[in-house]
Amino acid sequence: MTHSGHELSLAVSVLLVLGSAKLLGEIFEWLHQPGIVGEILAGVLIGPSVLGWIAPSENLMFLAELGVIFLLFRVGLEVKASELMEVGGVAALVGVSGVVLPMLAGWALLRAWGKPQMESIFVGAALTATSVGITAQVLSAKGLLNQIAARIILAAAVIDDVLALLILGVIGGVANGKVNVLELVLTTVFALLFIVAIARWGGSAMGKLAPRVEGKLRTAEAEFALAMILLFGLAALSERAGVAPIIGAFLAGMAMGETLPPRVHVLTHGVTELLVPFFLAGIGLRFDLTAFANRATLTLSVLVLGVAMATKVVGCGLGAIRYGRLVALRVGFGMIPRGEFGMVLAQIGLGLKAISPETYGMVVFVVVAATMLTPPLLKVAFRGVPASGGEVVRA
Amino acid sequence: MTHSGHELSLAVSVLLVLGSAKLLGEIFEWLHQPGIVGEILAGVLIGPSVLGWIAPSENLMFLAELGVIFLLFRVGLEVKASELMEVGGVAALVGVSGVVLPMLAGWALLRAWGKPQMESIFVGAALTATSVGITAQVLSAKGLLNQIAARIILAAAVIDDVLALLILGVIGGVANGKVNVLELVLTTVFALLFIVAIARWGGSAMGKLAPRVEGKLRTAEAEFALAMILLFGLAALSERAGVAPIIGAFLAGMAMGETLPPRVHVLTHGVTELLVPFFLAGIGLRFDLTAFANRATLTLSVLVLGVAMATKVVGCGLGAIRYGRLVALRVGFGMIPRGEFGMVLAQIGLGLKAISPETYGMVVFVVVAATMLTPPLLKVAFRGVPASGGEVVRA
Repeated sequence: MTHSGHELSLAVSVLLVLGSAKLLGEIFEWLHQPGIVGEILAGVLIGPSVLGWIAPSENLMFLAELGVIFLLFRVGLEVKASELMEVGGVAALVGVSGVVLPMLAGWALLRAWGKPQMESIFVGAALTATSVGITAQVLSAKGLLNQIAARIILAAAVIDDVLALLILGVIGGVANGKVNVLELVLTTVFALLFIVAIARWGGSAMGKLAPRVEGKLRTAEAEFALAMILLFGLAALSERAGVAPIIGAFLAGMAMGETLPPRVHVLTHGVTELLVPFFLAGIGLRFDLTAFANRATLTLSVLVLGVAMATKVVGCGLGAIRYGRLVALRVGFGMIPRGEFGMVLAQIGLGLKAISPETYGMVVFVVVAATMLTPPLLKVAFRGVPASGGEVVRA
Repeated sequence: MTHSGHELSLAVSVLLVLGSAKLLGEIFEWLHQPGIVGEILAGVLIGPSVLGWIAPSENLMFLAELGVIFLLFRVGLEVKASELMEVGGVAALVGVSGVVLPMLAGWALLRAWGKPQMESIFVGAALTATSVGITAQVLSAKGLLNQIAARIILAAAVIDDVLALLILGVIGGVANGKVNVLELVLTTVFALLFIVAIARWGGSAMGKLAPRVEGKLRTAEAEFALAMILLFGLAALSERAGVAPIIGAFLAGMAMGETLPPRVHVLTHGVTELLVPFFLAGIGLRFDLTAFANRATLTLSVLVLGVAMATKVVGCGLGAIRYGRLVALRVGFGMIPRGEFGMVLAQIGLGLKAISPETYGMVVFVVVAATMLTPPLLKVAFRGVPASGGEVVRA
């Protein structure tokens, strides 16, 4: 029984987020717009910036994080590790130039605008890491994960996350006045080895494990439970290795893709469908209007947003140019979204008083706005490509 | 990215709870014991009372509450409202005598032990409300929901929850020095009307709604999304009507049982399977060792536990005696578990300084212990009854 009245109850908050996200998603689909944008906007609408019905509470953010873990797991299930390895070289190029360019351009813009050195470095760094969740959701829902651009994006997102680990180490070092190069190199090498090992041998390990387990467990839906334990085990291990838990979830999906029984696929799909709206609306819930406080901040915010988007398109696109302009554009668009990393970095900067509250608000605005603008761009870039594979798409 | 180190990350806490619950559940099944007890004990083991690896954090309790909502929804899906209405009279008897007896006996025991009047009333009241989640899980997993005893238990649990609403009102009034009888009566009548209306017309309303919606929605898995919105809508409404959200979830399940497509059943089942271990281990996580502080408290705790169990068995059993002794025993055992209500009431008492911290710890101990002892009792009482209906049971 919940008889406390001081906060929204579980049922009411779940109802609000789920109901508004699905309603706006449906309206957007009717208007031939990406439903995913409607779901994010639902968060903006019911959140603190517009109606103020609900706050991005700890519990809702917990569900959002759980949602993006399941999202990347599902994407991993539909992707073969070997196919990602094939595009590994290009993905490394995409990842690196897609990190270096936003960093430099972001820093230069802030310096040119007259901001202090440290603040400019923080903003540049905050613009680096791609958050692949939104792109993954768009490509998965439209049945486009088999496209070469999709493979490059996914592989590059993994590389990008390792680079983010490196940047976080450097920024932390710069802020503390000393950078431990050896430790940084070791951490990065360890993270890379972890990723490569799972991508390379995860699938065959599963192939050997599955038949041994099958039929031997006594609890109901034991295969599903085991898959979930492996999923969160790899997510936790990837955190230990220094990369985001969603990278571990993605690797877990790739490792299990070939051995998971169809029933477990559907069971997992149910969880993903329930939780993804929390991830999407959760982005909108964190939308921050500080960026609109005055004209100067707003102008700078829009400029930084433009730089954040253009540098990913150009940087990542150039990395993939050998596959032609169209693929390069698709990869560039797919790498635009930012997420947690930018916000966490801005929070660290705020805590160190290296950046001002206005700049923090600006970073949050840029992260959310860049993410929201990605689905329509992807829709244009992939126009006319027929859906295929995994997901069944309606209408 | 989660780079904060002060708390267990999402991946680690989910892994710990899920992994330990499933491991102990599996071991218990191997030992021919109820797996559900293993899952609860996993919470005791990893929680503050034994290993101290993990605390019953707000996020975990949120998942636990979500889990029991899905559990009752699933049970509702497998039950027909008409079948519950048929046993309505007996269920009312079971509910009432299963509330009056524990209340009186609990109060009398505490008074005889020399405790103050107010403390004795609080403990008596805390022993009243059954928490049907555990019993529902046992009966659902064993395919026993079609049994007459199961139907009586479910209907009586609904009645019991309305009585809990009444008790909470009275206790609140007694603590504040005035009881508003008119308000209590109105609240109770409203809650009853709400429940009866949904049980009576929910199914046919769904039957009319479903064909209108089918094929008209454009987002993926729209029927699943709609079912989830209705589920949490009814859970939220039931809170408004004063009863627990799980009652709303149960009613939602009953209303949708006949119209929900099989795919939506499986998708929902995935969510339930993921979340129920959090509900089960969550019970264990809240296990409190204060009851073992000294011999006097321990003795009283064991006595209260005995009274709490015996009075439900006798009180509820007598209510169902016209169906024979075996059914009466099954109903009595099934109504033993306590939950949130007892803990919330004890917290209110603690806040009002009406009960001592030791008595609070004792109530938590009794709630958890009574709940943990139920599955083995149910196993004995239902021995030899073949499984049937809904769930597929393994081994």
